[in-house]
Amino acid sequence: MPDPALLEAFPTPTDSPFVIEHVSEEFTSVCPKTGHPDFGVITLRYVPAPGGVCVELKSLKLYYQSFRNEGIYYEAVTNRIRDDLVELMKPMWLQIITDWKGRGGIRSRIRAEHGDVPAEWRTR
Amino acid sequence: MPDPALLEAFPTPTDSPFVIEHVSEEFTSVCPKTGHPDFGVITLRYVPAPGGVCVELKSLKLYYQSFRNEGIYYEAVTNRIRDDLVELMKPMWLQIITDWKGRGGIRSRIRAEHGDVPAEWRTR
Amino acid sequence: MPDPALLEAFPTPTDSPFVIEHVSEEFTSVCPKTGHPDFGVITLRYVPAPGGVCVELKSLKLYYQSFRNEGIYYEAVTNRIRDDLVELMKPMWLQIITDWKGRGGIRSRIRAEHGDVPAEWRTR
Amino acid sequence: MPDPALLEAFPTPTDSPFVIEHVSEEFTSVCPKTGHPDFGVITLRYVPAPGGVCVELKSLKLYYQSFRNEGIYYEAVTNRIRDDLVELMKPMWLQIITDWKGRGGIRSRIRAEHGDVPAEWRTR
Amino acid sequence: MPDPALLEAFPTPTDSPFVIEHVSEEFTSVCPKTGHPDFGVITLRYVPAPGGVCVELKSLKLYYQSFRNEGIYYEAVTNRIRDDLVELMKPMWLQIITDWKGRGGIRSRIRAEHGDVPAEWRTR
Amino acid sequence: MPDPALLEAFPTPTDSPFVIEHVSEEFTSVCPKTGHPDFGVITLRYVPAPGGVCVELKSLKLYYQSFRNEGIYYEAVTNRIRDDLVELMKPMWLQIITDWKGRGGIRSRIRAEHGDVPAEWRTR
Amino acid sequence: MPDPALLEAFPTPTDSPFVIEHVSEEFTSVCPKTGHPDFGVITLRYVPAPGGVCVELKSLKLYYQSFRNEGIYYEAVTNRIRDDLVELMKPMWLQIITDWKGRGGIRSRIRAEHGDVPAEWRTR
Amino acid sequence: MPDPALLEAFPTPTDSPFVIEHVSEEFTSVCPKTGHPDFGVITLRYVPAPGGVCVELKSLKLYYQSFRNEGIYYEAVTNRIRDDLVELMKPMWLQIITDWKGRGGIRSRIRAEHGDVPAEWRTR
Amino acid sequence: MPDPALLEAFPTPTDSPFVIEHVSEEFTSVCPKTGHPDFGVITLRYVPAPGGVCVELKSLKLYYQSFRNEGIYYEAVTNRIRDDLVELMKPMWLQIITDWKGRGGIRSRIRAEHGDVPAEWRTR
Amino acid sequence: MPDPALLEAFPTPTDSPFVIEHVSEEFTSVCPKTGHPDFGVITLRYVPAPGGVCVELKSLKLYYQSFRNEGIYYEAVTNRIRDDLVELMKPMWLQIITDWKGRGGIRSRIRAEHGDVPAEWRTR
Repeated sequence: MPDPALLEAFPTPTDSPFVIEHVSEEFTSVCPKTGHPDFGVITLRYVPAPGGVCVELKSLKLYYQSFRNEGIYYEAVTNRIRDDLVELMKPMWLQIITDWKGRGGIRSRIRAEHGDVPAEWRTR
Repeated sequence: MPDPALLEAFPTPTDSPFVIEHVSEEFTSVCPKTGHPDFGVITLRYVPAPGGVCVELKSLKLYYQSFRNEGIYYEAVTNRIRDDLVELMKPMWLQIITDWKGRGGIRSRIRAEHGDVPAEWRTR
Repeated sequence: MPDPALLEAFPTPTDSPFVIEHVSEEFTSVCPKTGHPDFGVITLRYVPAPGGVCVELKSLKLYYQSFRNEGIYYEAVTNRIRDDLVELMKPMWLQIITDWKGRGGIRSRIRAEHGDVPAEWRTR
Repeated sequence: MPDPALLEAFPTPTDSPFVIEHVSEEFTSVCPKTGHPDFGVITLRYVPAPGGVCVELKSLKLYYQSFRNEGIYYEAVTNRIRDDLVELMKPMWLQIITDWKGRGGIRSRIRAEHGDVPAEWRTR
Repeated sequence: MPDPALLEAFPTPTDSPFVIEHVSEEFTSVCPKTGHPDFGVITLRYVPAPGGVCVELKSLKLYYQSFRNEGIYYEAVTNRIRDDLVELMKPMWLQIITDWKGRGGIRSRIRAEHGDVPAEWRTR
Repeated sequence: MPDPALLEAFPTPTDSPFVIEHVSEEFTSVCPKTGHPDFGVITLRYVPAPGGVCVELKSLKLYYQSFRNEGIYYEAVTNRIRDDLVELMKPMWLQIITDWKGRGGIRSRIRAEHGDVPAEWRTR
Repeated sequence: MPDPALLEAFPTPTDSPFVIEHVSEEFTSVCPKTGHPDFGVITLRYVPAPGGVCVELKSLKLYYQSFRNEGIYYEAVTNRIRDDLVELMKPMWLQIITDWKGRGGIRSRIRAEHGDVPAEWRTR
Repeated sequence: MPDPALLEAFPTPTDSPFVIEHVSEEFTSVCPKTGHPDFGVITLRYVPAPGGVCVELKSLKLYYQSFRNEGIYYEAVTNRIRDDLVELMKPMWLQIITDWKGRGGIRSRIRAEHGDVPAEWRTR
Repeated sequence: MPDPALLEAFPTPTDSPFVIEHVSEEFTSVCPKTGHPDFGVITLRYVPAPGGVCVELKSLKLYYQSFRNEGIYYEAVTNRIRDDLVELMKPMWLQIITDWKGRGGIRSRIRAEHGDVPAEWRTR
Repeated sequence: MPDPALLEAFPTPTDSPFVIEHVSEEFTSVCPKTGHPDFGVITLRYVPAPGGVCVELKSLKLYYQSFRNEGIYYEAVTNRIRDDLVELMKPMWLQIITDWKGRGGIRSRIRAEHGDVPAEWRTR
């Protein structure tokens, strides 16, 4: 069961804004309709708030693993992760991009955002 | 025969705008001139309207399959899919990009749009 | 309906053995169980018999197209094509290799052979 | 000899602007200086004028083939094709991009445009 | 829990030997030591016995899914799948190749075989 | 018109056997049936006879160019080049491999050989 | 121990602004938490100040090597290198992009900047 | 010794602005410090002035070859070529991008510009 | 300092021979001549002896890490690892393949073997 | 001028046969006919004689650099390097493979050997 309590944070090491990106290639959850597993790649990209916090990498891994046996749609996974990480970090801006392996010959990619994502990052 | 009645929708899970992309690598229709099959990749990209709907993935697959034995030109396929999906979802914006395998040594790509597609998405 | 009568042949242009390979990236048939389309790549490789015949390329394309709406399994497609082409050409040896796009996350490749295929060609 | 009379057009199927791209990987002409053949890839990209016309694909192929034995420089090919297609279609905008295989270790790419090509398309 | 009872078979469609290969890119189990998920690609390759059986594709998928929450080592997964499929099919020969994503910077590949695998297939 | 008189040779620089390979990515001829151009890649591989000769590279290019406007089938091109080069060089062994761009969705590769080509070179 | 005293500079050869990029694929430091080595690729991109200096390439290599046995986090490496190079060169603008191999299935990329980096460079 | 006198030009074939790009993958000079050879790829991109001239391709090759035994730094090569070609052509704008193979594990890319290069070309 | 005492083993899970391959992309040692770090990829491939043992993966990682600050040549690394792992496991056969990033523009690959490695594995 | 006196050797570190491969991607010489530079990749592969010697890597680089301004044909380069290295090392067997960038659209690869090269290495 997705568990945001697994997430931990540490203070940002600098006050100048900088972009952090973590790509997890080993995400899996379960399709609530068919019960078959879904496999995806989750990209998290954000700028920490000045004086704010960053998500700790190992805790992020455990949080992602907590979706393993959850029946949940692509769109809901994407927005859920966005919400949990925004709640944790209150970053300047944040993107979640989920890439899903094909089902029935169709690959999907979902993007959710928070805050004022600069135009040049929108399509990355 | 292309059948938009196959398309189903579900309510968007969030009111904040987010980008959804479905890539179907297994599209085929028939050239109305030569009777030979055409093979293409169809990319659908859109932002659902706030409080609006999203196309259901399996119904999208069946809708695409309904073009299998239809004699129809590249440009008409592209605009037809655009129109049917806009009719179904009334999204904030939507793109249909069709990539066609070579005929006579020429590969083709057609793009149709609806609504105010942001500049950074135009060439993606 | 698969129609071997579409196949045409022409005399081999030389008596010295040589290897001919035709790769069709646009094969489609229908899964007899689910009714969903299957998409594959068909590789034909053979050495014509001395004084024998070669399959004509355009007729091969039309023959492949005749599977378009046939409900037929991967293994049956592969063996059927092998049998029809052996019947037509009586080649020294012949291979049919079919590569199928993923279904449920599983990609498949089936190989059928005729005659004494040299060891070095077996795994190509 | 390049022959624009080979080009045919058909009415655009929709009044909303859409982008059409045809990539020909099998272009050849002759270097007027050395007499050796040149090999290139020609990309045509355009938006038909509302109520205007589109170039027909097979006629485009024949038009390109008419350069086969013409002695003509890279730059002249590019501008000539641009002019002939603008003359035929009067499109909203149009790009011709020619990519030439190496000569003496130098690969070349030439771009010619017509009309108000949007900035995001300039470098594609 | 790995469940060979999920596996189903169907009679081989031909008596001439032919090679069948199924590649599953969506395998996951759990490391019995760390409790972290493992992700792998499973390749099954075999020649059915004349008059024998082939594994049914959907049942193979369900069988692979039954490892999802099993704590089991790479080597044991590989040999277990080999044994279960040999038990089901009694094929002429069979290979199981498992490719595992990196752990601590080390990627692994394990191969188990049954019967007289021809030399040319050993390293494929 | 294919012109073997264009071919020139020079003495092999060593008596120990060595393998020479020339790959021409810019071959074009004409389909005798449709009149449309064919585009191919020609690989020549051979071991010169001890005390024998090697084909001169520039003369090989001109010889290949002499097929430019010839109506000739894939199989005939392949065997013709084999014969002309064997005539010129009398090598220990020689291979001609021609790879042709797709026509109607089918790519082709033809191989012709002369002399006792070692098994390990057969499928290269 | 990271040692900025290793860095050397030379006067910029021109007063017109130009972009310099150095990509080091052989960076390694140590994770302060686990003691395991981290491996990364460091991209430095900057425009020297008019009349200013450029970092000397060999000294940059030695400076990077001085992190070899330092226990230091990804974010700290990135900001530390940024600070040391800004201190050395006072450039018009500067970017440091660090790409880290996967740990626990998660790859990371961190970007730090100095000065007014043009928008078109932000996501490169 | 770099010799701009080798450069020749011809009149631009059209008054409408168009982009010309020449990529030379066979550039070599010598490191003035170590005496070891450097190997690079030189990209020239420019828009000729209306009524102006274009650099002739063979003369460009010879000009590049004149750096072969010159001891010269990356930055100096880049600015030198920029200056020589601007002097020759007085183009609307021009870019020189040099990509250098790794030295001590560090790859480098240097960009010099002339005139008002549009933003969309800056990072290409 | 390379420390074979770090290596641990576990009993092979089956008596039938099977091939195990571990690829470590994160190996580094130091050149004894220049003091500069070397970076390599180490491939270990072996068949455990029936009733014998397999190297434990985490202990292998720690063993590889023990070379981090050792001054040692490519050839010595390769043979040293071969000897230590043969000593530990007494396998049926074993290969060590080391791939080293370029130094002075030269990449190197060294292979050491133990026991009767089958011919088909020699060049893999 | 090619100078074998630059080559140095060191004793092989082990009596068991092992394969050493060095790939130099930065070779250049001059075409004796046209005076234009040639660029190639040189692969050296050998098994040192038991109790014999190995070529030292830096001396190999300097030896290759000594061809920089030599007018010499592809075949002669290949056989010359083979002879010089055999003279130096008297290895069990040795291969020299030279890959040359295209001239007039034709890429070339030449292989020279010494001693009893095992069949499985012949085509690598």
